[in-house]
Amino acid sequence: MSASAQSTWAARLIDGFARAGVREVIISPGSRSAPLVLAAAAHAALRCKTIVDERAAGFYALGQVRVSGRPSMLLCTSGTAGAHYFPDVIEASNAQHPLVVLTADRPPELHHRGAAQTIEQSRLYGAHARAFFELGAAPAVDEDAWSSVGDVLARTAALIVQRTRDPLPGPVHVNAWMRKPLEPPEETAVQAIAETPATTGRPLRAWGALREPDPSAVEALSDAIRQARRPMIVAGPAPLAARGRRGLLARVCRLGGFVVAAEAVSQLRLTGQRGPWLRLDGADWLLQAGVFLPQQPPDLLMQIGSAPVGRGWQQWLASKPPLERFVVAPCGWHDPFHHARAISEADVDATLGRVAERLEHDGISGESLDETWRERCARAEQLVWEAVDTALDAPGEPFGEPHAVRTVLEQLPAGSLLALGNSLPVREVDLFARGGLVHAGVVHQRGASGIDGLISAAAGAASLAGTSVTLLIGDLTLLHDASGLALSAGSEHSLVVVVLDNGGGRMFELLPIGARDDLSAPFREHFIARQAFDPAALAEAFGCRYARAAGADSLRAALARAYAAPGATLVHVPLPGERTAVLHQHLRRSVGQALAALERA
Amino acid sequence: MSASAQSTWAARLIDGFARAGVREVIISPGSRSAPLVLAAAAHAALRCKTIVDERAAGFYALGQVRVSGRPSMLLCTSGTAGAHYFPDVIEASNAQHPLVVLTADRPPELHHRGAAQTIEQSRLYGAHARAFFELGAAPAVDEDAWSSVGDVLARTAALIVQRTRDPLPGPVHVNAWMRKPLEPPEETAVQAIAETPATTGRPLRAWGALREPDPSAVEALSDAIRQARRPMIVAGPAPLAARGRRGLLARVCRLGGFVVAAEAVSQLRLTGQRGPWLRLDGADWLLQAGVFLPQQPPDLLMQIGSAPVGRGWQQWLASKPPLERFVVAPCGWHDPFHHARAISEADVDATLGRVAERLEHDGISGESLDETWRERCARAEQLVWEAVDTALDAPGEPFGEPHAVRTVLEQLPAGSLLALGNSLPVREVDLFARGGLVHAGVVHQRGASGIDGLISAAAGAASLAGTSVTLLIGDLTLLHDASGLALSAGSEHSLVVVVLDNGGGRMFELLPIGARDDLSAPFREHFIARQAFDPAALAEAFGCRYARAAGADSLRAALARAYAAPGATLVHVPLPGERTAVLHQHLRRSVGQALAALERA
Repeated sequence: MSASAQSTWAARLIDGFARAGVREVIISPGSRSAPLVLAAAAHAALRCKTIVDERAAGFYALGQVRVSGRPSMLLCTSGTAGAHYFPDVIEASNAQHPLVVLTADRPPELHHRGAAQTIEQSRLYGAHARAFFELGAAPAVDEDAWSSVGDVLARTAALIVQRTRDPLPGPVHVNAWMRKPLEPPEETAVQAIAETPATTGRPLRAWGALREPDPSAVEALSDAIRQARRPMIVAGPAPLAARGRRGLLARVCRLGGFVVAAEAVSQLRLTGQRGPWLRLDGADWLLQAGVFLPQQPPDLLMQIGSAPVGRGWQQWLASKPPLERFVVAPCGWHDPFHHARAISEADVDATLGRVAERLEHDGISGESLDETWRERCARAEQLVWEAVDTALDAPGEPFGEPHAVRTVLEQLPAGSLLALGNSLPVREVDLFARGGLVHAGVVHQRGASGIDGLISAAAGAASLAGTSVTLLIGDLTLLHDASGLALSAGSEHSLVVVVLDNGGGRMFELLPIGARDDLSAPFREHFIARQAFDPAALAEAFGCRYARAAGADSLRAALARAYAAPGATLVHVPLPGERTAVLHQHLRRSVGQALAALERA
Repeated sequence: MSASAQSTWAARLIDGFARAGVREVIISPGSRSAPLVLAAAAHAALRCKTIVDERAAGFYALGQVRVSGRPSMLLCTSGTAGAHYFPDVIEASNAQHPLVVLTADRPPELHHRGAAQTIEQSRLYGAHARAFFELGAAPAVDEDAWSSVGDVLARTAALIVQRTRDPLPGPVHVNAWMRKPLEPPEETAVQAIAETPATTGRPLRAWGALREPDPSAVEALSDAIRQARRPMIVAGPAPLAARGRRGLLARVCRLGGFVVAAEAVSQLRLTGQRGPWLRLDGADWLLQAGVFLPQQPPDLLMQIGSAPVGRGWQQWLASKPPLERFVVAPCGWHDPFHHARAISEADVDATLGRVAERLEHDGISGESLDETWRERCARAEQLVWEAVDTALDAPGEPFGEPHAVRTVLEQLPAGSLLALGNSLPVREVDLFARGGLVHAGVVHQRGASGIDGLISAAAGAASLAGTSVTLLIGDLTLLHDASGLALSAGSEHSLVVVVLDNGGGRMFELLPIGARDDLSAPFREHFIARQAFDPAALAEAFGCRYARAAGADSLRAALARAYAAPGATLVHVPLPGERTAVLHQHLRRSVGQALAALERA
């Protein structure tokens, strides 16, 4: 391999990715990837960031993609390096996030014969990558042939980027063989290679398809809406871009008379206003307490986006209710409950738009609506939040997990991003974010719903957010991605990592196993798994500010300080862990009692 | 699914693993795996350890396997949890370590339809697992049928464990579907299930095959030895068990007249004595300096174990030397240099034993040996270490990386374990461990040779070592597995993590790219990648003791304190990073000058 050919080939490939729209490159150091790294670093259109741990790098890239919507590129060396991306690749696949994973590899003559950092990288991610491209090595061609080689490379890069978006967004794995010498030739600066026009061929433009809804799905849904007396929408996880859906949803609700139960992750809860639709943001409380909704269910439930996350919803939808449920979501069969009446896999906004057009065209009377039920929904919404507030603000009630969540939501800067950990936080925000009071985008990880990589991902989101990011996680989630704090420190806007430290995996206490006295010993050891660690020292180790907040006032003050400056703050909220499950039970009972009147009506 | 069936099935499976010889179970918390976790926790023969981060758990398990030689079992929940094992699984595959990876899964009716923490787990590790067992779910059988179901489960577990050893040791992936309820029935204690005899069938014993060498390989090697005038052995990476090879090697050397260049990772360097063979432990220096050995090479080179790691060896063996090289190693084609004359893939001890028998039977004269060459080897060995010592101990020479390595080796407790990071440490120990003075086992990660998971692995090794463990790593390796410190804190013996903090990836400075002035900006940012972090705070965060040692005396004192107590100490050795490459160059020159006389002879 000539040094010149290797460097030129790498530069043309990287330039191809830049021309196809890649802007962010996350590099993890290594030797074998040198030609690609040097090409990326020299490219004017690419922003490179170096992250030592490939797993953290992968989640960081995902955080970027959640904000930007375009594929970030991961770039690593040969060996187990690429294997560390596996959890991120799976999340990107499940969540349908575009992502380019470029792994440098040793050439085939070094495979299977004891060379260091050499593993089988072909199809490394199996079915979890949308496609796998084995690029091989730079060809030995003379100068004249480079223009056509470069043209093919640029088109290959464009094809790869297209496959991260179409027909289904997700991760694409690209493997490239690198032969020594890995450095560019002395006489040719990498910069010069990077500046050489990449192609002499005709410029390429490429488009994928829009996922327009099937007209008969639109017709079926519109007909169902027209006939419904108690139509309701439940909105589950959706990407940040779904913030743009709010006007459209308001239009559909006005036309169809929907009551809307929007989860925070749907981007339709934290809208900064009480309207413009009839909200039942407390729906999960009603379902958990078993009051009102189970007895007076909607006769049409339109599920927008993925299946709802709330425990009340999960249990209710799985319990074979006689609901007419219509699932409207982008590609993906979002019905783990096996009871949907109809599923339309197509762009949600396009679907809502077509339905609205049809309702406007055919006219709807509104007379079919059960106005009493709608009024009861409004009343239930009011009673739920009163009951929750009354219980939380009761004299003598100590500061607990719900209070912390409520305080964080109240302090959230308008227009900022709220990133949610899985397990408890993603559910508690739904239980304590009364509708519409906060205006924020919600970043979440509901593809595979793991507790992994959330700090790294928040740092990635912060790198492109242009506003402050607040991450709400539990203590085990912090420990699972502790070194993610290292990526947070230099954040341009404020990045606030609020750790609800309830001393282990308290989510499990909300499951049946948590109530079993006979299992308490293994339960404590292997499920709660309380970890000994010092969050203040951890923050210090990675150059983050630290604040301990054991009450509402100190939490408010800590958040105010954190938002006042760029960079990261770890806000540590120590909580009486064993109180969380008890308090949830108490709140369910309070909601149940408050709604009893409505239920009897 | 009945709760009883699920729990019983899980208990029988886990009991089967215990009967097949599994003793260590590393659990990462989750809900879906509950029946398996409860069964493991209740089993008297199993030692369970809970580790929140599955990646750290995987490397911890590998550390155990390196010491115990038997498969540890990894146990995790559904979703991306299992994906975090991927780097460990690849390392186990490449290094041929037995390992059982048991992933709980949601049943097929929840796949592909938006259920949380549900991914395609089938064949998750692709070609990197030796085998994949899809166990399915517990069957709905009546009480009478359980004995035969349990018998089949026990045999399946025995088969799985067999496949972690035979025909090629490595990781085996087992996937089990779990349906709710995940808790055991109220009326049956898990303990009672665990204590039920697992099988009624006939007890099973199973054996794999010994990998005896092919007689014609033994004949060819013996003949080559008899004819050789300058026979030499180079010993590359081998497992801890190869410590038992020392007597056999001495016998072969006595019979065949070998000079031995043993790398530290071969278990044949740190033997605590200068003999009993003719050592050329400074061989890598000779090759790096280009003196003596290149000019007066062996006429037979027997490579024992994997390909040598040292840079001198790597470069020399790749440079098409006219060497007769005979590779004797367990299964694996250990010749990335494409120049071996013969390769025997079989048990090394068996091969050495057969060769020794044959040499004894046929008799060898010893007269064919080039005694002058052997004397020069002895002289070269002496001169190398004198030159290295003289250069390092020169007045005004500041305390640097070589001094730190030398001090650590000198202070190593006899009979303890030395764990080596990849990149620089594994190579520097060879360059600064003069032969035979220290008696220690060497734990290494030369399967895929990554810098990942080394602290977790050292903690795992320490959990079974029964002696102190000293881990020698660089700063980037520390950061890649920072949370591994959390696993170290409670170590029963002393676990000493010595961090050679040279401010980034200084290994790269020893490569051609490090010498390129025109690339210094991207080189510093994307290769050296110096990270800002506070190791003292990091140690404190995870409850490890901390010592800073910036000179030989303070390092000696820190090590003495660290070895005096159980638990983990992070010994932070700040080094002038940019000096490492310069010093290496200086040492190469010194060795070259010292050997010039010998070369002219």
